[in-house]
Amino acid sequence: EEEDAEGSSGLPIKLSSNRRADVSEFKGKRLVNIREYYEKEGEMLPGKKGISLSPEQFNMLRESAASIQEALSAE
Amino acid sequence: EEEDAEGSSGLPIKLSSNRRADVSEFKGKRLVNIREYYEKEGEMLPGKKGISLSPEQFNMLRESAASIQEALSAE
Repeated sequence: EEEDAEGSSGLPIKLSSNRRADVSEFKGKRLVNIREYYEKEGEMLPGKKGISLSPEQFNMLRESAASIQEALSAE
Repeated sequence: EEEDAEGSSGLPIKLSSNRRADVSEFKGKRLVNIREYYEKEGEMLPGKKGISLSPEQFNMLRESAASIQEALSAE
């Protein structure tokens, strides 16, 4: 029983043609899913490639975004 | 040939005991890896669960962090 969190305007985030970031709820816990999707019979379905982060893990990633950006830009 | 980007202080980010966010370089392109690791013979090795984002995809995720946070916090 997995369902989308309600009232989440702007979600899912389309990262590329087949990648999405979204928030879901599983067993009463919210998760941030960063995942590849594939098309089956006209529907986009979640694929294997991806990761589901806890709110704490997402928050840590968010707080580290500047360090990551720096490493991406470094000569 | 995958190597860590140099001069990336603060990386890898430890998201949990077995999850890391890091920047690597593959064929001249940098990637943000958000991935699970496992221990083998005392070494932490990257596992299958995870995703490697392009700088553009990471940037989009970063710019969407407030929307995601909002969905995580929504009643």
